[in-house]
Amino acid sequence: MRQAGRILKPYRELRQQHGSLLKLFKTPELAAEITLMPIDLLGVDAAILFTDLVTPLEALGCELTYAPGPVFAHPIRSAADINGLRNPVPEDDLAYVLEAAHLVRNALPSAVPLIGYAGGPFTLATWLVEGSHAKDFPAFRRMIHSDPALAHRLLDLLTDLASRFLRAQIEAGAQAVQIFDTSIGLLSPAQFNEFALPYVRRVCRSLAALNAPIIYFPLAGAQNLSSFGRVGAHVLSLDWRINLDAAYGLFGDTMPLQGNLDPCALYGSEASIAKAAQHILKQSRGRPHIFNLGHGVYPDTPCEKVKLLVDVVHQFAQT
Amino acid sequence: MRQAGRILKPYRELRQQHGSLLKLFKTPELAAEITLMPIDLLGVDAAILFTDLVTPLEALGCELTYAPGPVFAHPIRSAADINGLRNPVPEDDLAYVLEAAHLVRNALPSAVPLIGYAGGPFTLATWLVEGSHAKDFPAFRRMIHSDPALAHRLLDLLTDLASRFLRAQIEAGAQAVQIFDTSIGLLSPAQFNEFALPYVRRVCRSLAALNAPIIYFPLAGAQNLSSFGRVGAHVLSLDWRINLDAAYGLFGDTMPLQGNLDPCALYGSEASIAKAAQHILKQSRGRPHIFNLGHGVYPDTPCEKVKLLVDVVHQFAQT
Repeated sequence: MRQAGRILKPYRELRQQHGSLLKLFKTPELAAEITLMPIDLLGVDAAILFTDLVTPLEALGCELTYAPGPVFAHPIRSAADINGLRNPVPEDDLAYVLEAAHLVRNALPSAVPLIGYAGGPFTLATWLVEGSHAKDFPAFRRMIHSDPALAHRLLDLLTDLASRFLRAQIEAGAQAVQIFDTSIGLLSPAQFNEFALPYVRRVCRSLAALNAPIIYFPLAGAQNLSSFGRVGAHVLSLDWRINLDAAYGLFGDTMPLQGNLDPCALYGSEASIAKAAQHILKQSRGRPHIFNLGHGVYPDTPCEKVKLLVDVVHQFAQT
Repeated sequence: MRQAGRILKPYRELRQQHGSLLKLFKTPELAAEITLMPIDLLGVDAAILFTDLVTPLEALGCELTYAPGPVFAHPIRSAADINGLRNPVPEDDLAYVLEAAHLVRNALPSAVPLIGYAGGPFTLATWLVEGSHAKDFPAFRRMIHSDPALAHRLLDLLTDLASRFLRAQIEAGAQAVQIFDTSIGLLSPAQFNEFALPYVRRVCRSLAALNAPIIYFPLAGAQNLSSFGRVGAHVLSLDWRINLDAAYGLFGDTMPLQGNLDPCALYGSEASIAKAAQHILKQSRGRPHIFNLGHGVYPDTPCEKVKLLVDVVHQFAQT
């Protein structure tokens, strides 16, 4: 359950005490402590590393601040900008993330998996070229039309970065990894096939020998649903927009699916939360499935509602 | 071509001269002048009224400013908020929009249609409850879980408003109307069937006797593509994410489709713009089709590129 930490009181206290998000990300002891909180306080069955999608991009030499979302001082827009990027070595430049993974792995019971994570190459490109969040991320979409060769060069470079970063996380103790492709919904089928699919596939292929399950999370983008089965991941994580029955119908019962409760469902009554969760549990009964929200937890979600949800899922598993 | 005005020099001059967007919307002579600009300067084949999706919401008594996007001083979140809304009469409260439609109709050659417009009920609700633009509009999505009866009450009220507003626009001179459902992509199939479909259908049914073609534009939301044919519109306008061939395959060649060039394609070279446009023209050849962009024009789109696109489409039509 991504971003579960931010609804927890101890997290908010840490955040207030230390001020900047970057300091929390970059201090392995703090990042590890935050990663463990949802296990202890919510009872979820897996931990996901407390880091950010844009974290590895800073290692390219791109100055990053939070205001309050990620802001790059110099968006990457030209060939000269791309030529100026550093060639990062995750073991050095992102050592603080790997150290956090290591600390979490040592602290977790062996039955609780740690999930590492990175953005998909297309999504990383949308952030790096835009420089900050923007509706529909027009800057990189502009580049795929105005200079497709340059867009491919950037995607190639980001594919290497994501691959090496995920490999390093697995070597540091993550038993599974999730690739977050949160901008992928912007692409038509032809665009997805050209600017996303080959690159995500390369990331997945590069990790094959490590035998760690790869979860692919494409946010939105139902127009490419059938193609999401071709990226080479072991599990497909779906947001709340997709009907699980339809997805099992498309992929067959052999493709494990993750998700896909609408995070806004947690604003409902206890009865409506239980009903919504049970609906998903019934749809996926007898099929390979990992229960999860269909997107990150909203920061004003009541903590007790999340605990209730976890209980509902655990109780259903025992019936 | 929605928002085509904003790339035009005479529009920018008017905008600078008069300062506020609201003043341009609310002065019928200015709104009419801006509506006509793309006809004269770009050579497009139809005019779309210069107004905003949120315009009719102000007539509910909701104070609206632009900073720079629409901001409602008091977002509508509770039953008390809904009880406090005025029951607007478009002919009085939105007379300035109708007067602009009237002026445009009188100024346009009879062969050039004027398209009126309103937001779909669900989309209007996302803006009114959120109060301003927000990623994924969580406020109204929260309400559909926390108080679905209240959400339905608001949708019911906004359905009446959209119906009466569109009827009044047709009576004032619009020969067709377009319903913009720009937030609809947020909904799962079950949510679309409950919180969107019945309301858009009611809007379409309420206009049936007027014999004006209704164009439905659902932004994103491929997970509900097949349901978009059931709203009761005469034309389905698709954004750039949807493959036209796939859509014709789904709806058959009897459903007229509108769209769907990626507006970012206009950042490409002349050759790549022509190629992208011709691809769509070939896909739709022999099928009922209205060429258009798949979303609004980006403000920094070069004006001459848009003119080139219009020429490419007109030349193809003669082959």
